Amino acid sequence: MRFEAPESLSEQIAQHIGQRIVVRSLKPGERIQELKVAGELNVSRGSVREALLILERRHLVEIYPRRGAVVSEMTVSSVNALYDIYIDLLCMLGRKVLDRWSGHELSGLAGQVRKHGSALGDLSTSRSDPEQVIDAGFDLVRSACRLVENPFLQETLENFRPAISRTYYVVLENRPSETAETGLLFQKLADAAIQEDAAQLQQVIQDYGEHQRSQILNILMEENA
Amino acid sequence: MRFEAPESLSEQIAQHIGQRIVVRSLKPGERIQELKVAGELNVSRGSVREALLILERRHLVEIYPRRGAVVSEMTVSSVNALYDIYIDLLCMLGRKVLDRWSGHELSGLAGQVRKHGSALGDLSTSRSDPEQVIDAGFDLVRSACRLVENPFLQETLENFRPAISRTYYVVLENRPSETAETGLLFQKLADAAIQEDAAQLQQVIQDYGEHQRSQILNILMEENA
Repeated sequence: MRFEAPESLSEQIAQHIGQRIVVRSLKPGERIQELKVAGELNVSRGSVREALLILERRHLVEIYPRRGAVVSEMTVSSVNALYDIYIDLLCMLGRKVLDRWSGHELSGLAGQVRKHGSALGDLSTSRSDPEQVIDAGFDLVRSACRLVENPFLQETLENFRPAISRTYYVVLENRPSETAETGLLFQKLADAAIQEDAAQLQQVIQDYGEHQRSQILNILMEENA
Repeated sequence: MRFEAPESLSEQIAQHIGQRIVVRSLKPGERIQELKVAGELNVSRGSVREALLILERRHLVEIYPRRGAVVSEMTVSSVNALYDIYIDLLCMLGRKVLDRWSGHELSGLAGQVRKHGSALGDLSTSRSDPEQVIDAGFDLVRSACRLVENPFLQETLENFRPAISRTYYVVLENRPSETAETGLLFQKLADAAIQEDAAQLQQVIQDYGEHQRSQILNILMEENA
């Protein structure tokens, strides 16, 4: 049995507001008023300020001196900047997994990846739940991070998770068939990992990232049209 | 004339404590007590808590639920993890500069890099000031970031700046001749950039990063011996 300290109050507030930003019930560009949030949640203004700093670290809000906090924009240029760095970070993660591990350990991870992949394949035939698909992707990132044991890389990737989730949400709501794509990606990743082929692994990550990027950009342009 | 909003109080406190961590007057592993700091600086406890969240984002402190904030460790494994990701991020930055720019724009940057480099060469004959050498390195990173225009990459690199600075401080205090090494690096970077040779540019960054990493690891091991 493991006992864990509960999340701090500011972390709980951050997760609550963060979730509303990810599903876009708080819209890109919308102002977040400390006092109003503090009143709604019945918490101190200080806790809300701390939560906003946590959300800024997670790339979901921007805090301006005197003007306060605003939900981060989701524009063509911000999505491009986000995917540019996130794809590179995932490639870094993939390379480091292969640098460090081989044979038996890799086949364990690859097996887990395949299982996830076919579960997503099954899911895609029914009504798909964005949350489940997104979580499956990030579970994989976490498993890979555990193999690499670099807390800085893990933290940097974790901090991008909510902003990436927000873009996935938009895609999965508009293109439910994307669930099957994600399942297919998992199979390809597993193949490249088993073959210990770093170039191939990076290519699969890159292709999938570019596919995802173009989906979200198309939807944003449709929304604005 | 440009008017700028002053740094927020929590940002000022973060910079004050951060500077003390970088020069190791606050030692790795040392506890930071909110109440004590609030009393010393005559600020509210809430402002100190916000400052600590900012310092956590900058990889200088770790915050544990209930136990509070502790100055980040500087061990062989944490330095390795830090350099692993930082070298890769700098390579990413270098690649993206060359992806986006060529010819005239690059020669402008390269000229600036060379000037910095020879200034450091001159500096190394006199007593070297760690701060100046470190700032010159990060000025270069910022100039490159301005060319790449990816706010996420810039922010991620900026957040690593203080932790990297702390390791540079240790090296420059123990090995003053390293100033000349840094000057030499700048020349090599400028050469690779002018030739628009991405592989060479990444190699120069990698070699310098590995050199710096081995310096700091040697000193840490001497200190512990």
